[in-house]
Amino acid sequence: MHESQAKRNIKLVIAYNGAPYHGWQRQADGIDTVQRRIEEAATRVARHPVAVYGAGRTDAGVHAEGQVANFHTANVAIPPTGLRRAMNCRLPGDIFVRSAREVPAGFHAAKSAIGKTYRYRIYLGPQRPVALYRQVYCYWRPLDVESMQVAARRLLGEHDFRGFASSMDQRDNTVRTIRRCEVVRLDSEINVTVEGDGFLYKMVRNIVGTLIEIGRGHWQPDRIDRIFSSRSRSDAGPTAPGDGLALMCVHYRPADLEL
Amino acid sequence: MHESQAKRNIKLVIAYNGAPYHGWQRQADGIDTVQRRIEEAATRVARHPVAVYGAGRTDAGVHAEGQVANFHTANVAIPPTGLRRAMNCRLPGDIFVRSAREVPAGFHAAKSAIGKTYRYRIYLGPQRPVALYRQVYCYWRPLDVESMQVAARRLLGEHDFRGFASSMDQRDNTVRTIRRCEVVRLDSEINVTVEGDGFLYKMVRNIVGTLIEIGRGHWQPDRIDRIFSSRSRSDAGPTAPGDGLALMCVHYRPADLEL
Repeated sequence: MHESQAKRNIKLVIAYNGAPYHGWQRQADGIDTVQRRIEEAATRVARHPVAVYGAGRTDAGVHAEGQVANFHTANVAIPPTGLRRAMNCRLPGDIFVRSAREVPAGFHAAKSAIGKTYRYRIYLGPQRPVALYRQVYCYWRPLDVESMQVAARRLLGEHDFRGFASSMDQRDNTVRTIRRCEVVRLDSEINVTVEGDGFLYKMVRNIVGTLIEIGRGHWQPDRIDRIFSSRSRSDAGPTAPGDGLALMCVHYRPADLEL
Repeated sequence: MHESQAKRNIKLVIAYNGAPYHGWQRQADGIDTVQRRIEEAATRVARHPVAVYGAGRTDAGVHAEGQVANFHTANVAIPPTGLRRAMNCRLPGDIFVRSAREVPAGFHAAKSAIGKTYRYRIYLGPQRPVALYRQVYCYWRPLDVESMQVAARRLLGEHDFRGFASSMDQRDNTVRTIRRCEVVRLDSEINVTVEGDGFLYKMVRNIVGTLIEIGRGHWQPDRIDRIFSSRSRSDAGPTAPGDGLALMCVHYRPADLEL
Protein backbone atom coordinates (compact mmCIF):
# COMPACT_ATOMS: atom_id res chain seq x y z
CA MET A 1 0.00 0.00 0.00
CA HIS A 2 2.60 2.52 -1.07
CA GLU A 3 -0.26 4.90 -1.87
CA SER A 4 -1.28 5.18 1.77
CA GLN A 5 1.91 7.10 2.48
CA ALA A 6 0.36 10.13 0.81
CA LYS A 7 -3.00 9.75 2.55
CA ARG A 8 -4.17 11.26 5.78
CA ASN A 9 -6.03 9.17 8.35
CA ILE A 10 -8.87 11.21 9.92
CA LYS A 11 -10.52 10.27 13.23
CA LEU A 12 -14.06 11.54 13.77
CA VAL A 13 -16.06 11.69 17.00
CA ILE A 14 -19.74 11.55 16.07
CA ALA A 15 -23.02 12.13 17.93
CA TYR A 16 -26.36 10.99 16.53
CA ASN A 17 -29.97 10.50 17.36
CA GLY A 18 -30.40 6.92 16.16
CA ALA A 19 -34.21 6.92 16.22
CA PRO A 20 -34.80 7.35 12.46
CA TYR A 21 -31.83 5.25 11.31
CA HIS A 22 -31.40 1.55 10.61
CA GLY A 23 -28.35 1.49 12.85
CA TRP A 24 -24.78 2.52 12.15
CA GLN A 25 -23.77 -0.12 9.63
CA ARG A 26 -24.09 0.54 5.89
CA GLN A 27 -26.69 -1.75 4.30
CA ALA A 28 -28.28 -2.23 0.90
CA ASP A 29 -29.05 0.81 -1.22
CA GLY A 30 -31.99 2.85 -0.02
CA ILE A 31 -31.62 1.89 3.64
CA ASP A 32 -30.79 4.92 5.72
CA THR A 33 -27.92 4.32 8.13
CA VAL A 34 -25.58 6.66 9.97
CA GLN A 35 -22.48 5.23 8.30
CA ARG A 36 -23.99 5.92 4.87
CA ARG A 37 -24.71 9.53 5.83
CA ILE A 38 -21.20 10.00 7.19
CA GLU A 39 -19.65 8.43 4.10
CA GLU A 40 -21.73 10.62 1.80
CA ALA A 41 -20.72 13.76 3.67
CA ALA A 42 -17.03 12.73 3.77
CA THR A 43 -17.10 11.84 0.08
CA ARG A 44 -18.53 15.24 -0.81
CA VAL A 45 -15.97 17.09 1.27
CA ALA A 46 -12.94 14.97 0.30
CA ARG A 47 -14.02 14.95 -3.37
CA HIS A 48 -13.27 11.23 -3.72
CA PRO A 49 -15.13 8.08 -2.59
CA VAL A 50 -14.56 7.52 1.11
CA ALA A 51 -15.00 4.38 3.21
CA VAL A 52 -15.61 5.16 6.88
CA TYR A 53 -14.77 2.57 9.60
CA GLY A 54 -16.79 2.79 12.81
CA ALA A 55 -15.67 1.67 16.26
CA GLY A 56 -18.87 -0.26 16.83
CA ARG A 57 -22.06 -1.14 14.99
CA THR A 58 -24.88 0.44 16.94
CA ASP A 59 -28.21 -1.28 16.28
CA ALA A 60 -31.32 0.36 14.82
CA GLY A 61 -32.61 3.10 17.13
CA VAL A 62 -29.48 3.16 19.29
CA HIS A 63 -27.94 6.60 19.84
CA ALA A 64 -24.40 7.92 20.17
CA GLU A 65 -22.79 10.83 21.94
CA GLY A 66 -19.28 9.69 21.08
CA GLN A 67 -19.13 7.11 18.29
CA VAL A 68 -15.68 7.07 16.68
CA ALA A 69 -14.90 6.44 13.03
CA ASN A 70 -11.91 6.95 10.77
CA PHE A 71 -11.30 7.32 7.07
CA HIS A 72 -8.37 7.79 4.74
CA THR A 73 -8.25 10.67 2.34
CA ALA A 74 -5.85 11.73 -0.38
CA ASN A 75 -7.18 15.26 -0.04
CA VAL A 76 -4.67 17.15 2.03
CA ALA A 77 -5.95 20.65 1.29
CA ILE A 78 -8.57 20.91 4.05
CA PRO A 79 -7.47 21.09 7.71
CA PRO A 80 -9.44 18.75 10.04
CA THR A 81 -11.42 21.64 11.59
CA GLY A 82 -12.54 22.77 8.15
CA LEU A 83 -13.37 19.21 7.24
CA ARG A 84 -15.51 18.89 10.37
CA ARG A 85 -17.37 22.12 9.60
CA ALA A 86 -17.93 21.17 5.96
CA MET A 87 -19.19 17.70 6.91
CA ASN A 88 -21.62 19.14 9.47
CA CYS A 89 -23.05 21.46 6.80
CA ARG A 90 -23.86 18.36 4.75
CA LEU A 91 -25.24 16.24 7.58
CA PRO A 92 -28.85 16.27 8.85
CA GLY A 93 -29.65 17.87 12.21
CA ASP A 94 -29.67 14.54 14.02
CA ILE A 95 -26.05 13.67 13.14
CA PHE A 96 -23.13 15.81 14.25
CA VAL A 97 -19.36 15.47 13.91
CA ARG A 98 -18.06 16.67 17.28
CA SER A 99 -14.40 16.63 16.31
CA ALA A 100 -12.04 15.66 13.50
CA ARG A 101 -8.30 15.16 13.85
CA GLU A 102 -5.49 13.57 11.92
CA VAL A 103 -4.15 10.37 13.49
CA PRO A 104 -1.35 7.92 12.59
CA ALA A 105 -1.87 5.77 9.47
CA GLY A 106 -2.19 2.63 11.61
CA PHE A 107 -5.12 3.90 13.66
CA HIS A 108 -8.38 1.96 13.11
CA ALA A 109 -11.52 3.06 14.99
CA ALA A 110 -12.55 -0.53 15.79
CA LYS A 111 -9.24 -2.40 15.97
CA SER A 112 -7.42 0.26 18.01
CA ALA A 113 -10.23 0.61 20.56
CA ILE A 114 -9.35 -0.55 24.08
CA GLY A 115 -12.76 0.13 25.60
CA LYS A 116 -16.20 1.64 25.26
CA THR A 117 -18.68 3.36 27.53
CA TYR A 118 -22.44 2.98 27.07
CA ARG A 119 -25.31 4.65 28.90
CA TYR A 120 -28.84 3.28 29.16
CA ARG A 121 -31.76 5.57 30.11
CA ILE A 122 -34.79 4.02 31.83
CA TYR A 123 -37.70 6.41 32.26
CA LEU A 124 -39.93 5.74 35.25
CA GLY A 125 -43.46 6.79 35.92
CA PRO A 126 -46.89 6.52 34.36
CA GLN A 127 -46.70 9.65 32.17
CA ARG A 128 -45.39 8.94 28.68
CA PRO A 129 -42.52 11.43 28.15
CA VAL A 130 -43.37 12.51 24.58
CA ALA A 131 -40.42 14.92 24.30
CA LEU A 132 -38.10 11.96 25.05
CA TYR A 133 -39.82 9.70 22.53
CA ARG A 134 -37.31 7.04 21.39
CA GLN A 135 -34.59 8.54 23.64
CA VAL A 136 -35.50 6.50 26.72
CA TYR A 137 -37.04 3.15 27.63
CA CYS A 138 -40.29 3.74 29.52
CA TYR A 139 -40.76 1.32 32.37
CA TRP A 140 -43.94 1.48 34.43
CA ARG A 141 -43.30 -0.81 37.39
CA PRO A 142 -41.35 0.41 40.45
CA LEU A 143 -37.65 -0.50 40.46
CA ASP A 144 -35.46 -0.93 43.52
CA VAL A 145 -32.32 1.01 42.64
CA GLU A 146 -30.32 -0.40 45.55
CA SER A 147 -30.64 -4.03 44.49
CA MET A 148 -29.78 -3.01 40.92
CA GLN A 149 -26.64 -1.34 42.32
CA VAL A 150 -25.70 -4.49 44.24
CA ALA A 151 -26.11 -6.54 41.06
CA ALA A 152 -24.13 -3.97 39.04
CA ARG A 153 -21.12 -4.41 41.37
CA ARG A 154 -21.19 -8.16 40.74
CA LEU A 155 -20.70 -7.49 37.03
CA LEU A 156 -17.38 -5.70 37.62
CA GLY A 157 -14.13 -7.37 36.61
CA GLU A 158 -13.22 -10.14 34.20
CA HIS A 159 -15.95 -12.68 33.51
CA ASP A 160 -17.27 -14.94 30.79
CA PHE A 161 -20.22 -12.94 29.46
CA ARG A 162 -21.54 -15.71 27.15
CA GLY A 163 -24.87 -15.74 29.05
CA PHE A 164 -25.31 -12.00 28.40
CA ALA A 165 -24.57 -12.26 24.67
CA SER A 166 -27.13 -12.67 21.93
CA SER A 167 -27.18 -16.24 20.67
CA MET A 168 -26.42 -14.60 17.30
CA ASP A 169 -22.94 -13.78 18.62
CA GLN A 170 -20.68 -16.61 17.40
CA ARG A 171 -17.37 -15.42 18.84
CA ASP A 172 -15.29 -18.05 20.63
CA ASN A 173 -13.82 -15.74 23.24
CA THR A 174 -16.64 -14.37 25.37
CA VAL A 175 -14.47 -13.23 28.29
CA ARG A 176 -14.68 -9.46 28.80
CA THR A 177 -13.73 -7.04 31.56
CA ILE A 178 -16.28 -4.55 32.91
CA ARG A 179 -14.41 -1.65 34.48
CA ARG A 180 -17.42 0.39 35.56
CA CYS A 181 -21.12 -0.38 36.02
CA GLU A 182 -23.11 2.37 37.71
CA VAL A 183 -26.83 2.61 38.36
CA VAL A 184 -28.00 6.10 39.34
CA ARG A 185 -31.41 7.63 39.91
CA LEU A 186 -31.82 11.05 38.21
CA ASP A 187 -35.21 12.76 38.61
CA SER A 188 -37.61 10.55 36.64
CA GLU A 189 -34.90 8.29 35.26
CA ILE A 190 -32.58 5.49 36.19
CA ASN A 191 -29.38 5.63 34.17
CA VAL A 192 -27.07 2.65 33.81
CA THR A 193 -23.49 3.39 32.70
CA VAL A 194 -21.30 0.47 31.63
CA GLU A 195 -17.65 0.68 30.64
CA GLY A 196 -15.65 -2.29 29.46
CA ASP A 197 -12.81 -3.44 27.25
CA GLY A 198 -15.29 -4.79 24.73
CA PHE A 199 -18.88 -5.93 24.41
CA LEU A 200 -20.56 -8.95 22.87
CA TYR A 201 -23.59 -8.55 20.63
CA LYS A 202 -26.52 -7.04 22.63
CA MET A 203 -24.50 -7.48 25.84
CA VAL A 204 -25.33 -4.04 27.28
CA ARG A 205 -29.05 -4.39 26.53
CA ASN A 206 -29.08 -7.89 28.05
CA ILE A 207 -27.26 -6.60 31.14
CA VAL A 208 -29.86 -3.82 31.49
CA GLY A 209 -32.73 -6.25 30.93
CA THR A 210 -31.29 -8.44 33.70
CA LEU A 211 -30.81 -5.46 36.07
CA ILE A 212 -34.47 -4.50 35.48
CA GLU A 213 -35.62 -8.02 36.41
CA ILE A 214 -33.58 -7.68 39.59
CA GLY A 215 -34.88 -4.14 40.23
CA ARG A 216 -38.49 -5.24 40.02
CA GLY A 217 -37.83 -8.04 42.50
CA HIS A 218 -38.22 -10.95 40.11
CA TRP A 219 -34.62 -12.08 40.81
CA GLN A 220 -32.04 -11.46 43.53
CA PRO A 221 -28.72 -9.72 42.72
CA ASP A 222 -26.88 -13.08 42.94
CA ARG A 223 -28.64 -14.04 39.71
CA ILE A 224 -25.60 -12.40 38.05
CA ASP A 225 -23.31 -15.16 39.37
CA ARG A 226 -25.67 -17.85 38.11
CA ILE A 227 -25.58 -16.35 34.59
CA PHE A 228 -21.77 -16.26 34.74
CA SER A 229 -21.55 -19.91 35.78
CA SER A 230 -24.28 -21.33 33.50
CA ARG A 231 -23.17 -19.19 30.52
CA SER A 232 -26.78 -19.62 29.36
CA ARG A 233 -28.63 -16.80 27.63
CA SER A 234 -31.91 -18.16 29.00
CA ASP A 235 -30.80 -17.40 32.55
CA ALA A 236 -30.43 -13.67 31.79
CA GLY A 237 -33.23 -11.13 31.42
CA PRO A 238 -34.93 -9.98 28.20
CA THR A 239 -33.06 -7.67 25.83
CA ALA A 240 -33.89 -4.07 26.77
CA PRO A 241 -35.09 -1.99 23.77
CA GLY A 242 -32.52 -0.08 21.73
CA ASP A 243 -34.25 3.29 22.32
CA GLY A 244 -32.63 3.84 25.73
CA LEU A 245 -29.06 3.00 24.68
CA ALA A 246 -26.30 5.40 23.68
CA LEU A 247 -22.61 4.82 22.90
CA MET A 248 -21.02 7.56 25.01
CA CYS A 249 -17.34 7.20 24.16
CA VAL A 250 -14.69 4.92 22.73
CA HIS A 251 -11.33 4.66 24.48
CA TYR A 252 -7.89 4.54 22.82
CA ARG A 253 -4.28 4.54 23.94
CA PRO A 254 -2.99 8.11 23.72
CA ALA A 255 0.06 6.84 21.86
CA ASP A 256 -2.17 5.47 19.07
CA LEU A 257 -3.62 8.92 18.46
CA GLU A 258 -0.44 10.98 18.38
CA LEU A 259 1.14 11.71 15.03
CA MET B 1 -79.90 19.41 20.04
CA HIS B 2 -82.10 17.24 22.26
CA GLU B 3 -79.74 14.36 21.57
CA SER B 4 -76.84 16.08 23.34
CA GLN B 5 -78.67 15.61 26.66
CA ALA B 6 -77.75 11.95 26.56
CA LYS B 7 -74.15 12.59 25.54
CA ARG B 8 -71.14 13.08 27.71
CA ASN B 9 -68.65 15.87 26.97
CA ILE B 10 -65.08 14.66 27.59
CA LYS B 11 -62.14 17.04 28.13
CA LEU B 12 -58.68 15.67 27.28
CA VAL B 13 -55.28 17.08 28.23
CA ILE B 14 -52.80 15.90 25.60
CA ALA B 15 -48.99 15.91 25.28
CA TYR B 16 -47.26 15.29 21.98
CA ASN B 17 -43.95 15.45 20.23
CA GLY B 18 -44.96 17.46 17.16
CA ALA B 19 -41.81 16.73 15.14
CA PRO B 20 -43.28 14.03 12.84
CA TYR B 21 -46.76 15.58 12.50
CA HIS B 22 -48.21 18.15 10.13
CA GLY B 23 -49.53 20.13 13.06
CA TRP B 24 -52.61 19.61 15.18
CA GLN B 25 -55.35 20.37 12.65
CA ARG B 26 -56.96 17.56 10.66
CA GLN B 27 -56.14 17.88 6.95
CA ALA B 28 -56.77 15.92 3.77
CA ASP B 29 -56.66 12.13 3.88
CA GLY B 30 -53.19 10.67 4.20
CA ILE B 31 -51.74 13.68 6.03
CA ASP B 32 -50.67 12.72 9.53
CA THR B 33 -51.86 15.19 12.15
CA VAL B 34 -52.30 14.92 15.91
CA GLN B 35 -56.03 15.66 15.74
CA ARG B 36 -56.49 12.78 13.30
CA ARG B 37 -54.63 10.38 15.62
CA ILE B 38 -56.69 11.53 18.60
CA GLU B 39 -59.96 11.22 16.67
CA GLU B 40 -59.04 7.74 15.46
CA ALA B 41 -58.24 6.61 19.00
CA ALA B 42 -61.40 8.20 20.42
CA THR B 43 -63.51 6.67 17.65
CA ARG B 44 -62.11 3.20 18.37
CA VAL B 45 -62.72 3.52 22.09
CA ALA B 46 -66.15 5.21 21.88
CA ARG B 47 -67.26 2.82 19.11
CA HIS B 48 -68.81 5.65 17.09
CA PRO B 49 -67.31 8.40 14.89
CA VAL B 50 -65.91 11.16 17.08
CA ALA B 51 -65.05 14.78 16.23
CA VAL B 52 -62.42 16.23 18.56
CA TYR B 53 -62.17 20.01 19.09
CA GLY B 54 -58.75 21.37 20.05
CA ALA B 55 -58.03 24.51 22.06
CA GLY B 56 -55.50 25.73 19.53
CA ARG B 57 -54.06 24.68 16.19
CA THR B 58 -50.39 24.05 16.76
CA ASP B 59 -48.36 24.34 13.55
CA ALA B 60 -46.28 21.58 11.97
CA GLY B 61 -43.41 20.57 14.26
CA VAL B 62 -44.81 22.43 17.30
CA HIS B 63 -45.07 20.37 20.49
CA ALA B 64 -47.51 20.25 23.38
CA GLU B 65 -47.28 19.34 27.03
CA GLY B 66 -50.86 20.42 27.75
CA GLN B 67 -52.99 20.81 24.63
CA VAL B 68 -56.70 20.56 25.50
CA ALA B 69 -59.44 19.03 23.37
CA ASN B 70 -63.00 17.90 23.94
CA PHE B 71 -65.41 15.51 22.28
CA HIS B 72 -68.98 14.34 22.76
CA THR B 73 -69.77 10.69 23.11
CA ALA B 74 -72.98 8.73 23.42
CA ASN B 75 -70.99 5.92 24.98
CA VAL B 76 -71.54 6.19 28.72
CA ALA B 77 -70.22 2.75 29.65
CA ILE B 78 -66.52 3.67 30.03
CA PRO B 79 -65.40 5.90 32.90
CA PRO B 80 -63.03 8.74 31.83
CA THR B 81 -59.99 7.03 33.40
CA GLY B 82 -60.69 3.86 31.40
CA LEU B 83 -61.20 5.95 28.29
CA ARG B 84 -57.82 7.63 28.85
CA ARG B 85 -56.09 4.28 29.29
CA ALA B 86 -57.79 2.75 26.25
CA MET B 87 -56.93 5.76 24.08
CA ASN B 88 -53.27 5.67 25.17
CA CYS B 89 -53.08 2.00 24.17
CA ARG B 90 -54.15 3.04 20.67
CA LEU B 91 -51.92 6.12 20.34
CA PRO B 92 -48.28 6.13 19.16
CA GLY B 93 -45.50 6.72 21.71
CA ASP B 94 -45.19 10.40 20.79
CA ILE B 95 -48.80 11.26 21.70
CA PHE B 96 -50.15 10.84 25.22
CA VAL B 97 -53.48 11.63 26.85
CA ARG B 98 -52.49 12.97 30.27
CA SER B 99 -56.01 13.15 31.64
CA ALA B 100 -59.66 12.71 30.66
CA ARG B 101 -62.63 14.03 32.61
CA GLU B 102 -66.29 14.67 32.02
CA VAL B 103 -67.18 18.37 31.77
CA PRO B 104 -70.46 20.29 31.30
CA ALA B 105 -72.14 20.02 27.89
CA GLY B 106 -71.38 23.68 27.15
CA PHE B 107 -67.60 23.31 27.53
CA HIS B 108 -65.64 23.86 24.29
CA ALA B 109 -61.83 23.50 24.37
CA ALA B 110 -61.29 26.58 22.17
CA LYS B 111 -64.27 28.80 22.96
CA SER B 112 -64.12 28.29 26.73
CA ALA B 113 -60.38 28.98 26.95
CA ILE B 114 -59.44 32.15 28.83
CA GLY B 115 -55.69 31.85 28.32
CA LYS B 116 -52.75 29.79 27.13
CA THR B 117 -49.15 29.31 28.16
CA TYR B 118 -46.39 28.59 25.63
CA ARG B 119 -42.73 27.79 26.16
CA TYR B 120 -39.98 28.32 23.60
CA ARG B 121 -36.61 26.54 23.95
CA ILE B 122 -33.53 28.16 22.42
CA TYR B 123 -30.42 25.96 22.53
CA LEU B 124 -27.13 27.83 22.71
CA GLY B 125 -23.67 26.71 21.81
CA PRO B 126 -21.75 25.31 18.89
CA GLN B 127 -22.45 21.60 19.55
CA ARG B 128 -25.55 20.33 17.75
CA PRO B 129 -27.68 18.64 20.46
CA VAL B 130 -28.68 15.52 18.51
CA ALA B 131 -30.78 14.07 21.35
CA LEU B 132 -32.86 17.28 21.31
CA TYR B 133 -33.27 17.20 17.53
CA ARG B 134 -36.46 19.10 16.63
CA GLN B 135 -37.18 19.81 20.33
CA VAL B 136 -35.20 23.06 20.47
CA TYR B 137 -34.13 25.89 18.19
CA CYS B 138 -30.33 25.91 17.91
CA TYR B 139 -28.91 29.41 17.91
CA TRP B 140 -25.17 29.89 17.49
CA ARG B 141 -24.55 33.56 18.26
CA PRO B 142 -24.25 34.82 21.85
CA LEU B 143 -27.47 36.26 23.31
CA ASP B 144 -27.70 38.87 26.05
CA VAL B 145 -30.35 37.46 28.38
CA GLU B 146 -30.70 40.68 30.36
CA SER B 147 -31.75 42.81 27.41
CA MET B 148 -34.18 40.05 26.36
CA GLN B 149 -35.64 40.22 29.89
CA VAL B 150 -36.03 44.00 29.66
CA ALA B 151 -37.82 43.61 26.34
CA ALA B 152 -40.01 40.80 27.74
CA ARG B 153 -41.28 43.13 30.48
CA ARG B 154 -42.35 45.66 27.83
CA LEU B 155 -44.62 43.01 26.29
CA LEU B 156 -46.64 42.63 29.51
CA GLY B 157 -50.19 43.99 29.68
CA GLU B 158 -52.79 44.87 27.07
CA HIS B 159 -51.43 45.91 23.68
CA ASP B 160 -52.29 45.79 20.02
CA PHE B 161 -50.17 42.83 18.81
CA ARG B 162 -50.92 43.34 15.09
CA GLY B 163 -47.21 43.86 14.40
CA PHE B 164 -46.40 40.46 15.99
CA ALA B 165 -49.07 38.60 14.01
CA SER B 166 -48.53 36.78 10.76
CA SER B 167 -49.91 38.81 7.86
CA MET B 168 -51.99 35.67 7.22
CA ASP B 169 -53.97 36.50 10.37
CA GLN B 170 -57.04 38.42 9.20
CA ARG B 171 -58.73 38.98 12.55
CA ASP B 172 -60.01 42.52 13.19
CA ASN B 173 -59.34 42.56 16.91
CA THR B 174 -55.61 42.22 17.47
CA VAL B 175 -55.59 43.49 21.05
CA ARG B 176 -54.36 40.85 23.49
CA THR B 177 -53.16 40.79 27.09
CA ILE B 178 -49.84 39.15 27.99
CA ARG B 179 -49.92 38.19 31.66
CA ARG B 180 -46.46 36.64 31.88
CA CYS B 181 -43.35 36.79 29.70
CA GLU B 182 -40.23 35.27 31.25
CA VAL B 183 -36.80 34.74 29.76
CA VAL B 184 -34.62 32.37 31.78
CA ARG B 185 -31.21 30.84 31.21
CA LEU B 186 -31.10 27.09 32.01
CA ASP B 187 -27.78 25.33 31.43
CA SER B 188 -27.29 25.38 27.65
CA GLU B 189 -30.72 26.85 26.94
CA ILE B 190 -32.69 30.07 27.07
CA ASN B 191 -36.37 29.38 27.70
CA VAL B 192 -39.07 31.94 26.95
CA THR B 193 -42.43 31.41 28.65
CA VAL B 194 -45.40 33.48 27.48
CA GLU B 195 -48.87 33.44 29.01
CA GLY B 196 -51.74 35.47 27.60
CA ASP B 197 -55.50 35.60 27.14
CA GLY B 198 -55.10 34.69 23.49
CA PHE B 199 -52.57 34.65 20.69
CA LEU B 200 -52.64 35.75 17.07
CA TYR B 201 -51.29 33.48 14.34
CA LYS B 202 -47.53 32.93 14.83
CA MET B 203 -47.51 35.58 17.58
CA VAL B 204 -45.36 33.61 20.03
CA ARG B 205 -42.79 32.69 17.37
CA ASN B 206 -42.66 36.32 16.19
CA ILE B 207 -42.22 37.53 19.77
CA VAL B 208 -39.35 35.04 20.21
CA GLY B 209 -37.80 36.04 16.89
CA THR B 210 -37.92 39.68 18.03
CA LEU B 211 -36.43 38.86 21.46
CA ILE B 212 -33.57 37.05 19.70
CA GLU B 213 -32.84 40.11 17.53
CA ILE B 214 -32.73 42.17 20.74
CA GLY B 215 -30.60 39.53 22.51
CA ARG B 216 -28.01 39.52 19.78
CA GLY B 217 -27.78 43.32 19.95
CA HIS B 218 -29.33 44.08 16.58
CA TRP B 219 -32.13 46.09 18.28
CA GLN B 220 -32.64 47.73 21.67
CA PRO B 221 -35.44 46.55 24.02
CA ASP B 222 -37.52 49.66 23.15
CA ARG B 223 -38.02 48.13 19.72
CA ILE B 224 -41.05 46.46 21.33
CA ASP B 225 -42.78 49.86 21.72
CA ARG B 226 -42.09 50.73 18.10
CA ILE B 227 -43.74 47.47 16.95
CA PHE B 228 -46.76 48.24 19.15
CA SER B 229 -47.14 51.76 17.72
CA SER B 230 -46.42 50.97 14.07
CA ARG B 231 -48.50 47.74 14.14
CA SER B 232 -46.24 46.68 11.26
CA ARG B 233 -45.08 43.08 10.89
CA SER B 234 -41.96 44.31 9.12
CA ASP B 235 -40.80 46.07 12.30
CA ALA B 236 -40.74 42.79 14.25
CA GLY B 237 -38.12 40.03 14.02
CA PRO B 238 -38.23 36.89 11.88
CA THR B 239 -40.57 34.03 12.83
CA ALA B 240 -38.64 31.64 15.09
CA PRO B 241 -38.84 27.99 13.88
CA GLY B 242 -41.67 25.80 15.18
CA ASP B 243 -39.24 23.20 16.60
CA GLY B 244 -38.62 25.13 19.84
CA LEU B 245 -42.27 25.84 20.63
CA ALA B 246 -44.58 23.92 22.96
CA LEU B 247 -48.13 24.64 24.14
CA MET B 248 -47.75 24.07 27.87
CA CYS B 249 -51.30 24.58 29.15
CA VAL B 250 -54.70 26.04 28.37
CA HIS B 251 -56.55 27.94 31.08
CA TYR B 252 -60.28 27.73 31.88
CA ARG B 253 -62.64 29.11 34.51
CA PRO B 254 -63.08 26.44 37.19
CA ALA B 255 -66.84 26.94 36.96
CA ASP B 256 -66.80 25.92 33.28
CA LEU B 257 -65.24 22.57 34.19
CA GLU B 258 -67.47 21.54 37.06
CA LEU B 259 -70.41 19.27 36.35
